[in-house]
Amino acid sequence: MNYPLSVEKWDVFEFSCEGRTEGNPFSDYEICGIFRSSQETVRVNGFYDGNGIYRVRFMPSFEATYTFCIQGTFSDRVYQGSFEATSPEQSNHGPVRTANTYHFAYEDGTPYYPVGTTCYVWELQSDERIDETLKSLAESGFNKLRFCILPKHYDYNLGEPRSYPFEGTPMDSSILTKENFLQYTGKTEGNHWDFSQFNTAHFQHIEKCILTLQKMGIEADLIVMHPYDRWGFSQMTGEQDEQYWKYVLARFSAYRNVWWSLANEYDLMEHKTLEDWEFYAKLICENDPYGHLRSIHNCRPFYDHTRPWITHCSIQRQDLYKSSELVNEWRIRYRKPIVLDEIAYEGNLQHGWGNITAEEMVRRFWEAACRGGYPGHGETYLNEDGVLWWSHGGRLRGESWKRVHFLHGIMCQTPGIGLAPKEQEWDEICAVPEDEQLAAKTGYHLIYYSFMRPSFREFYFDDSTWYTVEVIDTWEMTTEYRGTFKGRFCVELPGKQYMAIRIRRAQQDGREISSHCH
Amino acid sequence: MNYPLSVEKWDVFEFSCEGRTEGNPFSDYEICGIFRSSQETVRVNGFYDGNGIYRVRFMPSFEATYTFCIQGTFSDRVYQGSFEATSPEQSNHGPVRTANTYHFAYEDGTPYYPVGTTCYVWELQSDERIDETLKSLAESGFNKLRFCILPKHYDYNLGEPRSYPFEGTPMDSSILTKENFLQYTGKTEGNHWDFSQFNTAHFQHIEKCILTLQKMGIEADLIVMHPYDRWGFSQMTGEQDEQYWKYVLARFSAYRNVWWSLANEYDLMEHKTLEDWEFYAKLICENDPYGHLRSIHNCRPFYDHTRPWITHCSIQRQDLYKSSELVNEWRIRYRKPIVLDEIAYEGNLQHGWGNITAEEMVRRFWEAACRGGYPGHGETYLNEDGVLWWSHGGRLRGESWKRVHFLHGIMCQTPGIGLAPKEQEWDEICAVPEDEQLAAKTGYHLIYYSFMRPSFREFYFDDSTWYTVEVIDTWEMTTEYRGTFKGRFCVELPGKQYMAIRIRRAQQDGREISSHCH
Repeated sequence: MNYPLSVEKWDVFEFSCEGRTEGNPFSDYEICGIFRSSQETVRVNGFYDGNGIYRVRFMPSFEATYTFCIQGTFSDRVYQGSFEATSPEQSNHGPVRTANTYHFAYEDGTPYYPVGTTCYVWELQSDERIDETLKSLAESGFNKLRFCILPKHYDYNLGEPRSYPFEGTPMDSSILTKENFLQYTGKTEGNHWDFSQFNTAHFQHIEKCILTLQKMGIEADLIVMHPYDRWGFSQMTGEQDEQYWKYVLARFSAYRNVWWSLANEYDLMEHKTLEDWEFYAKLICENDPYGHLRSIHNCRPFYDHTRPWITHCSIQRQDLYKSSELVNEWRIRYRKPIVLDEIAYEGNLQHGWGNITAEEMVRRFWEAACRGGYPGHGETYLNEDGVLWWSHGGRLRGESWKRVHFLHGIMCQTPGIGLAPKEQEWDEICAVPEDEQLAAKTGYHLIYYSFMRPSFREFYFDDSTWYTVEVIDTWEMTTEYRGTFKGRFCVELPGKQYMAIRIRRAQQDGREISSHCH
Repeated sequence: MNYPLSVEKWDVFEFSCEGRTEGNPFSDYEICGIFRSSQETVRVNGFYDGNGIYRVRFMPSFEATYTFCIQGTFSDRVYQGSFEATSPEQSNHGPVRTANTYHFAYEDGTPYYPVGTTCYVWELQSDERIDETLKSLAESGFNKLRFCILPKHYDYNLGEPRSYPFEGTPMDSSILTKENFLQYTGKTEGNHWDFSQFNTAHFQHIEKCILTLQKMGIEADLIVMHPYDRWGFSQMTGEQDEQYWKYVLARFSAYRNVWWSLANEYDLMEHKTLEDWEFYAKLICENDPYGHLRSIHNCRPFYDHTRPWITHCSIQRQDLYKSSELVNEWRIRYRKPIVLDEIAYEGNLQHGWGNITAEEMVRRFWEAACRGGYPGHGETYLNEDGVLWWSHGGRLRGESWKRVHFLHGIMCQTPGIGLAPKEQEWDEICAVPEDEQLAAKTGYHLIYYSFMRPSFREFYFDDSTWYTVEVIDTWEMTTEYRGTFKGRFCVELPGKQYMAIRIRRAQQDGREISSHCH
């Protein structure tokens, strides 16, 4: 028996003990615990972690003395004990929750503006590559990372992962080529897996990665299932799936930075039915006592994001031309946060989903942000070493990520939590604070001109209020103060694409610097 | 009495005679003629042209001996005579007609691919400016020009026109400013017009301009009514409108390069009803015996382009983001040629309709062309002299017009008449000849990648046919031959935006130069 006497609130309290190893400890025995403080009583399932060790993890949500009572089916012994959940360090804000209907905040109330990127199997690469990815992430400012628990078989990603989730041996991948790989997608021949035996090293490694991300302030948007498979992991039986989901939930739920993405492109998983997805959702709701964020990502048709278990939309755009521009509609339709987990990637692949410019990527980010949605990033640049950020992580090669970081800084200056779209002029994308009272009080307007190139814009809100005006070059990442105005005023612009204007109620009377335009 | 003894087929035969001038010759008298050859009998109305002169114009559609019989209500005399309609010169292909449902051809069968631009009141500027515009047009390769018969009152266009269509005096325009001009839109005070008295010099000048354009191979897309008015021309009575329309039709119909645009932004003309528009359409159908092309242009809601008198759609895009991309839908809906008479203008105005980049303009041109539609150009660059191409003509300052010329060259190489969209891959815009048999026979594919930047694309049509492949850089205006391939083949691309690939059945067996990609 092993456990700490204190953990920070929202950190992982982990209890471990030895137990029986006869038979199949993954399936033959169970372990679970009940954790009590004056504010909560939580029941959690533990899991077998190999080498005769069973573990139970728990995330305390209160600063309090907790007692626990843990019992495994492998013995009659009841483990009891207590620990202190202490006040969190400054960087620990708790798990992310939805807030203000369309937005997010950490449990401690700190607003959270997701700027995510995707590196599908970064954690299944070599140590050196993983270190490189972490270094890139630290530099980038991304605060959400979308990745898969299971290995990925797909164009540009035909290599072996560093480990597999189950004991067994994979098919011979030396026969795979760029030309034939699709024939092996969804094929199970040549693989020999014991789906009843988890490879604990695989999960231990992922936990280490989740924790590293947590320390960097990055949410781990875990893709639990996906169709890019040559091993049969996407075609397990219902029972095997259930075991897999429960194992994942028991291991990862106590990490505060975990989000559940049931699948990437769920609709491409032809062996799964809607009933299956609803069943997995039920498993999450039953086995994750902390209510981590839950969603499911589409290729073509959206999942029905009105389902009550879905906390936020995870959207892959359906249209070649319009992606972020549809955030307004989706907000109305789903009344949940709109996270755009694929709006195409900056790159130069052959495919339309992976070859937009950095400028277009940043434009889609601003369009989404100013409509009250949350865009996601990815990079797919072909290169000699075959390492693509979107799949492997590694080094960021593009130009959009820097501007995403800059946008995040602007988003964080929103009064209250979250931006809402405001109908202003037909040819401007205008955001105001979601909270109407704050919007009125602050006069905050973030106005984006996208691909348009106005040389000036005229404004009128009222006759008496002074407004400070800044011109933002979203590409050059500059913010320029232009003066304080009232009544009708005109803002000169450089006649370039990707400009924004930020207008805020002035703290004191200003000085009209220029109000006459062309 | 005056008339020529011969004219070219599709040129204007003009008869003139003296008649009574008492009262109001514009309304008190009529003159009409009947023209006969072995192939046609055509009745046309003439008009009073001032100074006691009445004219009757006729466009012969056949090479034949024509006799005519002309009579005015101002006397009992019947003028009879004959003339020869001779074979047309090489540059004279006759009026433009719709062809192949979605396309256009001259009456002699020569395909006509419209690449139009808009200079609303170029012809109402000074002689010097008009000459400059004509020089620019000659250099540009545009083959359709959209402009107004009536003067224009609008932002950046507050000056006096060189002439007015009616006798009288206009309001004092010295009081107009950029700030107050909108208050005078649709106001009639201060104007003193006699709507029963046409200013013949105004119309004579426009005829001269139409004829000059004709000699340059440019169609005159005449906007007969519009809402940008401070003189009251948009608020005449039903009777006055009818008189205006009949006068316009009698004067201009015989010019083979005339198209009728009933209005620009018809829906902004608040004093006109749907019944009014249908009535004007009826007047055209009754008074233009040559069946010139007819359409009507919207601001927001489209006119019902299924109306039988509408020969082609004249569309202003309704969406900020999608314009040309919707050509496919409109083709299905209207089954007529889709002319995009406003997809925003290259420029840097404050307004979203007038500040897109040259790159975006050219992209919209290619999108439209590869979907079997016909995009239109315009330029709105602010500049010190206040001369904007979109309104005044003058000098082209942008970068898109050159690329439009290049695209026109590509369009003209289409087998048969017109391109049709083909569903190929979701991330390519693919055009094939409209004629299915020709499409099959020629294997002609024009594939556009828009804002995407593929580094290569793979193709497979069949195993046995050899195809020649060209890579087109639509921005740099280059076409590069890449070889002749069969079976599966791969085309390397530079990973840049705005690239196209043209594939055609080879004349003879080729040589596979490279078929292996990244």
